[in-house]
Amino acid sequence: MRRSLLLATALLAVSAPALSQSVDRGQVNRIIDEGTTRSQVMPIAEHLADVIGPRLTNSPQMRQAEAWTQAKFSEWGLKNVHKEGFDFGRGWWIESSSVKMITPRAVELVAIPIAWTPSTEGTITAPVIVAPIKRERDFDKWRGQLKGRIVMVTLPDTGSEPGEAAFKRYTNEDLGKLDQYQQPTYDPAATDRRIKRLDFARKLDAFLKSEGALAYATESRSDGKLIHGEGYLFGVGDTPVVPGVEIAAEDYRRLARLAKVGPAPTIAINSDVRFDDSDRNAYDIIAEIPGTDPKAGYVMAGGHLDSWVAGDGAGDNGAGSAMVMEAARILAATGVRPKRTIRFALWAGEEQGLLGSLAYVENHLATRGSPNDPPQTGLARYYGWSNRWPITPRPGWGELAAYFNLDNGSGKVRGIYVENNQAVVPIFREWLAPFAPMGATNVVIRKTGGTDHVFMQAVGVPGFQFIQDPLDYDSRVHHTNIDTFDHLKGADMRQASVILASFLLNAANADHVLPRPPLPTRPVVTDPYAYSDDDD
Amino acid sequence: MRRSLLLATALLAVSAPALSQSVDRGQVNRIIDEGTTRSQVMPIAEHLADVIGPRLTNSPQMRQAEAWTQAKFSEWGLKNVHKEGFDFGRGWWIESSSVKMITPRAVELVAIPIAWTPSTEGTITAPVIVAPIKRERDFDKWRGQLKGRIVMVTLPDTGSEPGEAAFKRYTNEDLGKLDQYQQPTYDPAATDRRIKRLDFARKLDAFLKSEGALAYATESRSDGKLIHGEGYLFGVGDTPVVPGVEIAAEDYRRLARLAKVGPAPTIAINSDVRFDDSDRNAYDIIAEIPGTDPKAGYVMAGGHLDSWVAGDGAGDNGAGSAMVMEAARILAATGVRPKRTIRFALWAGEEQGLLGSLAYVENHLATRGSPNDPPQTGLARYYGWSNRWPITPRPGWGELAAYFNLDNGSGKVRGIYVENNQAVVPIFREWLAPFAPMGATNVVIRKTGGTDHVFMQAVGVPGFQFIQDPLDYDSRVHHTNIDTFDHLKGADMRQASVILASFLLNAANADHVLPRPPLPTRPVVTDPYAYSDDDD
Repeated sequence: MRRSLLLATALLAVSAPALSQSVDRGQVNRIIDEGTTRSQVMPIAEHLADVIGPRLTNSPQMRQAEAWTQAKFSEWGLKNVHKEGFDFGRGWWIESSSVKMITPRAVELVAIPIAWTPSTEGTITAPVIVAPIKRERDFDKWRGQLKGRIVMVTLPDTGSEPGEAAFKRYTNEDLGKLDQYQQPTYDPAATDRRIKRLDFARKLDAFLKSEGALAYATESRSDGKLIHGEGYLFGVGDTPVVPGVEIAAEDYRRLARLAKVGPAPTIAINSDVRFDDSDRNAYDIIAEIPGTDPKAGYVMAGGHLDSWVAGDGAGDNGAGSAMVMEAARILAATGVRPKRTIRFALWAGEEQGLLGSLAYVENHLATRGSPNDPPQTGLARYYGWSNRWPITPRPGWGELAAYFNLDNGSGKVRGIYVENNQAVVPIFREWLAPFAPMGATNVVIRKTGGTDHVFMQAVGVPGFQFIQDPLDYDSRVHHTNIDTFDHLKGADMRQASVILASFLLNAANADHVLPRPPLPTRPVVTDPYAYSDDDD
Repeated sequence: MRRSLLLATALLAVSAPALSQSVDRGQVNRIIDEGTTRSQVMPIAEHLADVIGPRLTNSPQMRQAEAWTQAKFSEWGLKNVHKEGFDFGRGWWIESSSVKMITPRAVELVAIPIAWTPSTEGTITAPVIVAPIKRERDFDKWRGQLKGRIVMVTLPDTGSEPGEAAFKRYTNEDLGKLDQYQQPTYDPAATDRRIKRLDFARKLDAFLKSEGALAYATESRSDGKLIHGEGYLFGVGDTPVVPGVEIAAEDYRRLARLAKVGPAPTIAINSDVRFDDSDRNAYDIIAEIPGTDPKAGYVMAGGHLDSWVAGDGAGDNGAGSAMVMEAARILAATGVRPKRTIRFALWAGEEQGLLGSLAYVENHLATRGSPNDPPQTGLARYYGWSNRWPITPRPGWGELAAYFNLDNGSGKVRGIYVENNQAVVPIFREWLAPFAPMGATNVVIRKTGGTDHVFMQAVGVPGFQFIQDPLDYDSRVHHTNIDTFDHLKGADMRQASVILASFLLNAANADHVLPRPPLPTRPVVTDPYAYSDDDD
């Protein structure tokens, strides 16, 4: 309670409207020159994606990336380069894998082990059974039928008919739609549903084990031989016991059809995956350009360094990491001496629930919840965290003046989302003005979710995302086996790095810190009279 | 010369304008009923694509398909069911294959052995070299550098930006554009260029062998992990000696980038492919519904049964084969007694140069060329055949009244191409009229190429193709690893089968045979004053 009062005072102190900001256009020139003529953003991204490759949190490749990115920051002259650990779970990687149809004919299938499922310890060869299992009550339907089988748990769908272009840049009309205010909604049951779904994954694993199933297979949610391999049970003592693979949609459907018209096909799975429990901590990477005024606080940019493993983590989020690193390099190379410290963060554990940025928020900014709340770990923490009360700020809460996140692929910046913070609109318009000739023109109201600014906002710290051209990020790159460097756009990433660097410098040198949004308070249910079918 | 005179007489006899045709709408009802309520087109296509799988000409799976389709025709009561052999070349199939990057890190690559290249006889592990080789003079550039290497012969490109939807149905505007006349063009050097390119494949193989290269790799021409594996050296004594694989674009580009920034990556290729030379003949499958008037000749529908092997040959051309078979089944089931015989053909060797339909044309309709022409085999025959003179009709030339081909995926029929034959427009409009409510409305002038009606036209026999909705056939299915049954559309294929059956019956019962186009004569060079850079 005392903290909350303190917080209210702090809010009053920092939320005075900022005066008109002036942009140092000479500095803009220098940033553009450094970030275009001597850009390093693509070599950085190439090293992360091609040389290091996918960076699942706590995997050996993520450890490589932790070391390499720190070395780079140090090489460029950044200060206070270090890593900050947080409890995460098991390291896991794919040494090799193959899935083949053996009967009625030989076909090499496109498939991937599901993250954190165990090795098959050699090749498992068995007939499949199509046994769609979506909820606990489906268990009864299949009990006694799964022994010695590879269980296809997804209900096979039919093919997609993609009616939109895979590659897209925003039109002015698209951008206009992003500037439409959306009221917040609150459904207190949503969190429970999500946690129940996560628990269901555990129960399915136990059910398959108890039934004597040898392995299970899911169908990729994308057509066209795209696969993902996401899995969310990564805690020490919490990983599955039954091997699982995700099979490309075309291959999964073929198996399902053959099982319908004749004897069930036999498939062979060899999933040679490995665990490493030597260090259950994941690490966020931090680096700084120190401010000249030690009392002025800091501004920050971040992106997550971790990825899934089907591709190389190029668009998600080697691109964002590379642009954050390049902004750091540009600012260091131009010799800026900002008033506020500029901090750079490369997060871990984002793909499993924004866990790296959440750890940062809890350690540096504020905690949520009471000591009596049941403890939550892993993805359940992500689902539940924003519904925990009260918000208790830490001493550092007021020091972070603004956070800018990059995690929407490699498309160029077309503007910035103010995340419903009306008070920053005129300020960002000024900051963005020099970049109109580069296609970045729009300051829009829209609130965005799903990445590492979310928990900043959840404790009232202004966290922002840039609007990026979508390219083929959502349509085919995001989390898939074609998240590779060749889907990144160099000119776009150079532009975005420059704009991020400029925003950071403006935020670091602004006369006043950015206005903060109101601190979140316990919401009321949006539509308390509605009934819903919560059964999924 | 005598034959040519005969031919001119025959032309006069058959090209009298047809009188107004009447469509028996009672029969249309029966065809629609049989083809919708009791359709078998999807089970046929499913068997071809899923159970039998890809059907490379002369492969064991194609042999299975030859037997199964004949059995089906016989089961439905068709007559004169038989196969007609023609000299083709070697059987070849993939027993299993894998391509992996070993260093700098382990990645399973998406790749496919190139058709008719030899086995690696175990695993070949070697560093790659990026050595783009496009023409003979590139050999000098790489001589002495390829020993012990896996040679990446395609110049790596950058990623695509697909700006059109992958899945599409024709709008009325699209259909309107198909009804625009295009003048024929004639470039006598084109054939030589193509044959030179084919010869280059042989020379490249010999060069790689003489340099001690262990294997070679090409880049897929499609993004998104789509692969094809086409190869065109399939003759006995003419298949390559160096193993070759096509690597998915994303994987190929990653190898190429890594080779540029560091030590060349090492990859491991295991291509376990097999040849079968027990029967060098390929076989076209023929079946008939006999006509009541033995002197009235016949009409015919066809589609090629063979496919490439990256997918299951579903859209190309299991779909067309299934629709031709279903039209046969519908007509047999409705007990039609046509005046002319209705013949059905499932061609082999289409993917290697329309070789099955070419054999049919040569054996039944007409030959082209003089006895002094140099002999040509395989794909070179396809390139050269339409430039051979004179055209010499066989006695059966006048018997084939019309040929209808299906080979454009599984999209429903939106109309028919008259292939510049103005005289059939009013007739086809009448035949198509009952199907306007099913979306088939357009009789368009456009001439089409690339499939099995081409050599009919090349000897003056009226061969036609239907306009089919494009769906995702050209954008992602054609020749790729996602040419699978789930990309076929059942409702579309039922509609197309019905329309094909109805057209066949109309053609078989028409009072007059369809008007023929003028017999091809030696063209003049379209633009004799132009220079061109023939160097490719």
